[in-house]
Amino acid sequence: MKTNGLKALIFDVFGTVVDYRSSIIKECEKLNEMKDLELNSPKFADAWRGAYRPNLDRILSGELSWMNLDSLHLMVLRKLLDEFEINHLTEEEIIHLNRVWHRLEPWGDAVPGLQRLKQKFIISPLSNGNVSLLTNMAKHSGLPWDLILSPEMIKSYKPDPNVYHMAIDFLDLQPNEVMMVAAHQHDLQAAKKLGMKTAYVFRPLEYGCEAIPNLMPEENYDVVARDFIDLAQQLGA
Amino acid sequence: MKTNGLKALIFDVFGTVVDYRSSIIKECEKLNEMKDLELNSPKFADAWRGAYRPNLDRILSGELSWMNLDSLHLMVLRKLLDEFEINHLTEEEIIHLNRVWHRLEPWGDAVPGLQRLKQKFIISPLSNGNVSLLTNMAKHSGLPWDLILSPEMIKSYKPDPNVYHMAIDFLDLQPNEVMMVAAHQHDLQAAKKLGMKTAYVFRPLEYGCEAIPNLMPEENYDVVARDFIDLAQQLGA
Repeated sequence: MKTNGLKALIFDVFGTVVDYRSSIIKECEKLNEMKDLELNSPKFADAWRGAYRPNLDRILSGELSWMNLDSLHLMVLRKLLDEFEINHLTEEEIIHLNRVWHRLEPWGDAVPGLQRLKQKFIISPLSNGNVSLLTNMAKHSGLPWDLILSPEMIKSYKPDPNVYHMAIDFLDLQPNEVMMVAAHQHDLQAAKKLGMKTAYVFRPLEYGCEAIPNLMPEENYDVVARDFIDLAQQLGA
Repeated sequence: MKTNGLKALIFDVFGTVVDYRSSIIKECEKLNEMKDLELNSPKFADAWRGAYRPNLDRILSGELSWMNLDSLHLMVLRKLLDEFEINHLTEEEIIHLNRVWHRLEPWGDAVPGLQRLKQKFIISPLSNGNVSLLTNMAKHSGLPWDLILSPEMIKSYKPDPNVYHMAIDFLDLQPNEVMMVAAHQHDLQAAKKLGMKTAYVFRPLEYGCEAIPNLMPEENYDVVARDFIDLAQQLGA
């Protein structure tokens, strides 16, 4: 595509930049070994992530009062530990486990792709993660963001349009100077409605090898990319 | 000092990280040449910066409604162009000149010092600059921030205590896990009152060779450093 006027790329993170599912499974396996548990790690990871969108929707509808993602993850984690009958973790161990979301590992192409993109554009996450989660994750995994943008700054969550507006305003750019990059089409559709550019990146393994989703683009996006290296290539970075 | 428990360093920027005065003088000299002007560059730079604190105080007192630093700089710039009788710049040239604050050059030790500090700590500006100003400046000058924190996020300015609280809260840390780094003692004093750690860095040339200020520390700061290399050394980074 022509990148005339494109100044900044903002990224969805969970699933798009990092492979949360494998990271959480790995952490649960470690826990199984250390604490002699028999936690079904893939099931646990899926249940934890599965509670994410319904709870965000409850917050956006006003049914649940606003809390940041760390707090939401912790609320769900306590419930899941009960359900999975894991009842002998110390409070410190629970907090440490909850912070696995600060230690998620990137897809293999993410860091080299971002490094290339950063040479030409401003790059920032625009994830539902809170500021400290995104900052610690970047330190942990070497994600070379120029800045961190989070809906925590206005106590909301994507796909509230105010979240995308916030990013555009803080960057002091026009909507069509900013590109939303995501593996999730609802995120891109929300951005596109506001006049932003969009890049759809395939992440077929987000839900594991046995649950490859329908990846077909549902709309016209400005870029459709295999991964971040391909995205950099297509954007001339 | 013992750095046990110290997690993040947040930096004042104008004067502490970047040499705004020389940068503005250099830009004015360029303008003199290009537009055949006879602007007294040092006087102009000092007048522009000189209007900063009084105007922020008017905003913090409620006398002037909140605007971000780019807008404040522009308001002052228009007035100064009148006063200095520079009346043949196009609107585009005025906007470009106003964005000199996005193109300020760092002190020689700043980038190598920050690179060392970043290995051990989270590093962020906590400057009165707006988000886009601080982001563009970092891109321009290679400042390797982990994130950008700005009072624009809560529509206020330092030394409002809410600004420091905002930084601590977004980082999800305790006050004594965060160190304010500044060449200006009022900034450190505001941070110290809230229980933050403080590092005072000498910048004798902030106001030029002929106006070296009294640099004597007025209080006990956790660190007093010659420059950012010395700061890194003292913090074991």
